[in-house]
Amino acid sequence: MSGSIYGNQFRFSTWGESHGKAIGVVVDGCPAGLPLAEEDIQSYLDRRKPGQSRYTTKRAESDAVEILSGVFEGRTTGTPISMMVRNMDQRSKDYSEIASYYRPGHADYGYDAKYGFRDYRGGGRSSGRETIGRVAAGAVAVKILSALGIQVRAYAEEIAGIRCGSVDLSVCGDNPFYMPDAEAAARVQAAAEAAMAAKDSLGGVVACLVSHMPPGIGEPVFDKLDACLGKALFSIGAVKGVEIGDGFAAAKSTGSANNDGFLPPESPGGPLNKASNHAGGILGGMSDGSEILIRAAFKPTPSIAREQQTVNLDGEPVTVSIRGRHDPMIVPRAVVVVEAMTAVTLVDLLFAGMTARMEGICRFYGTDFPVKQ
Amino acid sequence: MSGSIYGNQFRFSTWGESHGKAIGVVVDGCPAGLPLAEEDIQSYLDRRKPGQSRYTTKRAESDAVEILSGVFEGRTTGTPISMMVRNMDQRSKDYSEIASYYRPGHADYGYDAKYGFRDYRGGGRSSGRETIGRVAAGAVAVKILSALGIQVRAYAEEIAGIRCGSVDLSVCGDNPFYMPDAEAAARVQAAAEAAMAAKDSLGGVVACLVSHMPPGIGEPVFDKLDACLGKALFSIGAVKGVEIGDGFAAAKSTGSANNDGFLPPESPGGPLNKASNHAGGILGGMSDGSEILIRAAFKPTPSIAREQQTVNLDGEPVTVSIRGRHDPMIVPRAVVVVEAMTAVTLVDLLFAGMTARMEGICRFYGTDFPVKQ
Amino acid sequence: MSGSIYGNQFRFSTWGESHGKAIGVVVDGCPAGLPLAEEDIQSYLDRRKPGQSRYTTKRAESDAVEILSGVFEGRTTGTPISMMVRNMDQRSKDYSEIASYYRPGHADYGYDAKYGFRDYRGGGRSSGRETIGRVAAGAVAVKILSALGIQVRAYAEEIAGIRCGSVDLSVCGDNPFYMPDAEAAARVQAAAEAAMAAKDSLGGVVACLVSHMPPGIGEPVFDKLDACLGKALFSIGAVKGVEIGDGFAAAKSTGSANNDGFLPPESPGGPLNKASNHAGGILGGMSDGSEILIRAAFKPTPSIAREQQTVNLDGEPVTVSIRGRHDPMIVPRAVVVVEAMTAVTLVDLLFAGMTARMEGICRFYGTDFPVKQ
Amino acid sequence: MSGSIYGNQFRFSTWGESHGKAIGVVVDGCPAGLPLAEEDIQSYLDRRKPGQSRYTTKRAESDAVEILSGVFEGRTTGTPISMMVRNMDQRSKDYSEIASYYRPGHADYGYDAKYGFRDYRGGGRSSGRETIGRVAAGAVAVKILSALGIQVRAYAEEIAGIRCGSVDLSVCGDNPFYMPDAEAAARVQAAAEAAMAAKDSLGGVVACLVSHMPPGIGEPVFDKLDACLGKALFSIGAVKGVEIGDGFAAAKSTGSANNDGFLPPESPGGPLNKASNHAGGILGGMSDGSEILIRAAFKPTPSIAREQQTVNLDGEPVTVSIRGRHDPMIVPRAVVVVEAMTAVTLVDLLFAGMTARMEGICRFYGTDFPVKQ
Repeated sequence: MSGSIYGNQFRFSTWGESHGKAIGVVVDGCPAGLPLAEEDIQSYLDRRKPGQSRYTTKRAESDAVEILSGVFEGRTTGTPISMMVRNMDQRSKDYSEIASYYRPGHADYGYDAKYGFRDYRGGGRSSGRETIGRVAAGAVAVKILSALGIQVRAYAEEIAGIRCGSVDLSVCGDNPFYMPDAEAAARVQAAAEAAMAAKDSLGGVVACLVSHMPPGIGEPVFDKLDACLGKALFSIGAVKGVEIGDGFAAAKSTGSANNDGFLPPESPGGPLNKASNHAGGILGGMSDGSEILIRAAFKPTPSIAREQQTVNLDGEPVTVSIRGRHDPMIVPRAVVVVEAMTAVTLVDLLFAGMTARMEGICRFYGTDFPVKQ
Repeated sequence: MSGSIYGNQFRFSTWGESHGKAIGVVVDGCPAGLPLAEEDIQSYLDRRKPGQSRYTTKRAESDAVEILSGVFEGRTTGTPISMMVRNMDQRSKDYSEIASYYRPGHADYGYDAKYGFRDYRGGGRSSGRETIGRVAAGAVAVKILSALGIQVRAYAEEIAGIRCGSVDLSVCGDNPFYMPDAEAAARVQAAAEAAMAAKDSLGGVVACLVSHMPPGIGEPVFDKLDACLGKALFSIGAVKGVEIGDGFAAAKSTGSANNDGFLPPESPGGPLNKASNHAGGILGGMSDGSEILIRAAFKPTPSIAREQQTVNLDGEPVTVSIRGRHDPMIVPRAVVVVEAMTAVTLVDLLFAGMTARMEGICRFYGTDFPVKQ
Repeated sequence: MSGSIYGNQFRFSTWGESHGKAIGVVVDGCPAGLPLAEEDIQSYLDRRKPGQSRYTTKRAESDAVEILSGVFEGRTTGTPISMMVRNMDQRSKDYSEIASYYRPGHADYGYDAKYGFRDYRGGGRSSGRETIGRVAAGAVAVKILSALGIQVRAYAEEIAGIRCGSVDLSVCGDNPFYMPDAEAAARVQAAAEAAMAAKDSLGGVVACLVSHMPPGIGEPVFDKLDACLGKALFSIGAVKGVEIGDGFAAAKSTGSANNDGFLPPESPGGPLNKASNHAGGILGGMSDGSEILIRAAFKPTPSIAREQQTVNLDGEPVTVSIRGRHDPMIVPRAVVVVEAMTAVTLVDLLFAGMTARMEGICRFYGTDFPVKQ
Repeated sequence: MSGSIYGNQFRFSTWGESHGKAIGVVVDGCPAGLPLAEEDIQSYLDRRKPGQSRYTTKRAESDAVEILSGVFEGRTTGTPISMMVRNMDQRSKDYSEIASYYRPGHADYGYDAKYGFRDYRGGGRSSGRETIGRVAAGAVAVKILSALGIQVRAYAEEIAGIRCGSVDLSVCGDNPFYMPDAEAAARVQAAAEAAMAAKDSLGGVVACLVSHMPPGIGEPVFDKLDACLGKALFSIGAVKGVEIGDGFAAAKSTGSANNDGFLPPESPGGPLNKASNHAGGILGGMSDGSEILIRAAFKPTPSIAREQQTVNLDGEPVTVSIRGRHDPMIVPRAVVVVEAMTAVTLVDLLFAGMTARMEGICRFYGTDFPVKQ
């Protein structure tokens, strides 16, 4: 089994390699009647596009998306939505050197061990370009969430160990790192310049907030909301850690400090509030109605120009220096990928949640379908 | 969709509530010919049994497992293995109080929001007893891994913020916390006594090591080894964070420091070694042949006798104090659950990995099956 | 992968062998709030119980079901429903003869080829007793359908080539064959006596009607209603053919004769009628609002006392005569199994159908969930 | 959930509408190392191409396939294979008439009931053009089967009630109906001319043979070989019946006549033979080593120029006559679709079968992977 299909009710299948003809995704299970245009996808894709600042790869790609199916007269039809981006910049270069050894921190050795074979052109399927399909599917999911009043917003919380002191999402677009704290962003800029001068790379943490999520979403005991989000984020290349709410800090806390007491609803019968949100909006594997907070830790980009020791295909030691147009840090472009993977996971579980109660099912079919007597 | 089925090739379906008649699991997809006896399951289950020390719940349960199907003449037959543990200690007690409010840090509110309904007896399906099914399935998986030469060992790495300074797995059984460092365990014991005196609870971190894993296991780009392990661990109640290898620390590192250079194999054609293992044995979503290291952060047990503020079913503020036989910390009993979820995930992906290459498939069918000409 | 889990949204996992300790099923994904008691399951199971007439096996089994989880205070809780039937009549008999050869028409050779191993006691997992789990799950599905106003009724349409001339479902219970035509049943009785005297067995056809199914159910292009029903029925042992509506007769028809013209609805905006129903209520893989008609052809019971030629485990020719308490015909007891598999499939697709339109999803979440602003 | 993804280990996701920009498929789970070129796909696709004779639609399409990913240096890489065919002939015509009513025998009403919306251009997703994706995926599956020595060959067994008297597959290409009996084909030609003159259409039966299938393939009790094939064939538009081996005729037979006695193997330890093959090569849901025979009954093409009664979108009666370039019979072009769906199902189950025994798994990993000690 190969693992390029994600989701259960809202599913998508991604395809394409870094230096192949194109990259794309087929979304299966998008409901009919959603207004959808190429601009919706394009504006989301543009957030992960290369070449947006000197701190991301200089590969020149327009990444123009084409919707090939599933939309008719401006609305989704309920049939699969196929979306494709042609690879423009397949620079003909000599890959013989890179093909000859196993890059440290890369998937090369795993691919060879697994498939006996590898597409060495720019990382093939393990390239960051693979995320184009995720982001396109995420753009569709974001539109569905939006129709349900749910908002997903990710940002760079930490880069090079420099953490945002405050969170003002309106300033994210003003710095090349998508950080919600201008002062932290300035310090990161200095760190980035230093790293680049040292031919080195940097890691960081992306945080993601979900607002207005109804309570009770997530399917215990295995398809819990946190479990599914965990899988979603760990499936992004370079992610080495995931936290919900207080995360690892909760392990050092006590029950009395970590428990979030419930508060009366704002209006009778409304959703409950909580006095605190250490849980990050998820309890028992289900949303609890509070804001969801998740975090993903990204390792530094493994491709660096600095010399490294590794072995060649014959297992002999070699010294390598990886040239090319690599991101000195992955975090700024990963922000939208985290958002996308969060969005598709939420949609999948919101759909799953519709069959939780007989009452809701009866109401759904009673009013929606004209049943013959 | 309810989410009580786990896995794709090696699948299991768990069932049962804390105070129902029984708890169990059906394992579907266990290969034929594996020697399996109730003792294999029982000895594994005994590691999560309540009442093993004064630092775990005093609920008295023998947790005796019965294998109901799938084993014939001491070996698995390839058909589903049904395993069941009767609940003995269903103390008839008055649940009307607990049923009247939403416990902080618990799934109560989510269950009500989702199902309009909840089994308030001892947490129902969200009780820690639900893990019995996981551990029984894990015992089967561990036997399969063992036949393939793969070893999975989890331990308590940190409790109450006290971290093991050294890792000697042979001493885990000598302290009630399953810690591999006797000195740290002694300090944890003092912290545990203090927390219990304060009617409070503690969290911690469980680590898990996998040895002798072949390289190339994991199915990019969504069913990556780390993504599946992430889901597996986050699906365990109370887990709020997961790390692979250096985890969140990797986000503060640099490419040159974080990359693990490959080293020549010990014998020609053998698996590669690495000069370091910051990656925790997983690169590009596949095993890299090195030891796998994963970690799960557990929050403090939410049930505490100390007074807390919350609301009742009518949304009115109430002060509660949760009585009962609760674990002051979940970590010692969670160790085997982490091991079990890791084991079932590895088996699932090892099975998936068998179809990665035409060469392997042809060899498999060429020698195994007598095909008529 | 072993295949004992069925369904996607409404899933169940069956287990158990003919002569093992017990047989059972775990239903995962049953919505909360459905009234459910053991009597609901038992009365359905009783319809497939052995020993109901001299035309079915004389094995004496009470087949008493026990609900082990998922029901609280008379209603489903949304968590897995585990149901079990203990095998009472595990007659200690000598299986060494049957273990020594491959029975014609049975799964013996396939099991050996697949698993290298077989549970030769009464057919093990390939026994008709395996259907207990399906019928128990079907009983739950039937209750769900009933709450939605949908009715599923199967009957024996043909046995020994004798076909019902009329269909009066009220007389099915009056004859041992579950046939809706008393006259045909009388002729079948004579044929059955003759076959039994000749130590031989008989096959037949089970038909199933579904009334009041809303239009539009089924998920093109692979999870079509007919495709899923086809899989459901072919998964029942001994089924060799399946038809929807006119089935194979449609292949001999013409477009003008076979097309069902639509008729105006009975009331404005109501569901359409059709002037005929050659399609059997399914068009384009979706229900069309008319009565659904499906058929399954069952081969004659392969276990016969008459002498047969086959080979032993060493591949040497042997003459065998299969003794035991076998059904001279499977059809009467298969009727409820067909009904059960139809019901679970309908529920699964009704659930899947809830996410077909944005409009329905928005209405569902807008009214059902209190979303915080 | 929309249902455009097929399979478990070998999965594919199809997309595209009749009059959209393109039609395609993504194959996920194809093993690495399979030689694959566009010619392999194209030659298979050409067998379903329109316009091959006066008995199939005159729509002019080259149906030229483009492989967009998953193949490198002439071999599959183990990553998703994306294949696409641009729709050339999207004749701008006025669809307002066809959009105004529900065509008898078509999916129109179901689509409207389900999605509240339909792509009325040429049937949209319910068009026969949807099968392009299936056939492209089938071409990949056929190559895998071929590498395992397994052959799949479908043909037209019956059209307009005229059945082949003999089966000589070498003559299929010599007549426009893909029939293995020249004499029957000649009679079909006359019937076809008559039907076309009468502005009517014809149905028929496609049979499919699988040779050299190893025994033991299929996953009881739900993912049986016959159950999965049944789903595969019923998912093809216009299929109303499916048979395995003797099919419905078996229901009229007796156990003594229908059972296939096993015969000694040709060489010691080789696969068993059978004295007859009423079972069609499948027993107990698994292949039995004999030739597999399955059949699918296709209804007559519903689009006919003859006048029909139906209703418009307002439910009012209308008389319609469907103009356009429709196939007077679907069977000749459906042959390759049956073959394709059979092939993908066999590959999926052959892959699933690799984990049936511990012995096979240990052998696989023992020899294939260099496990570190």
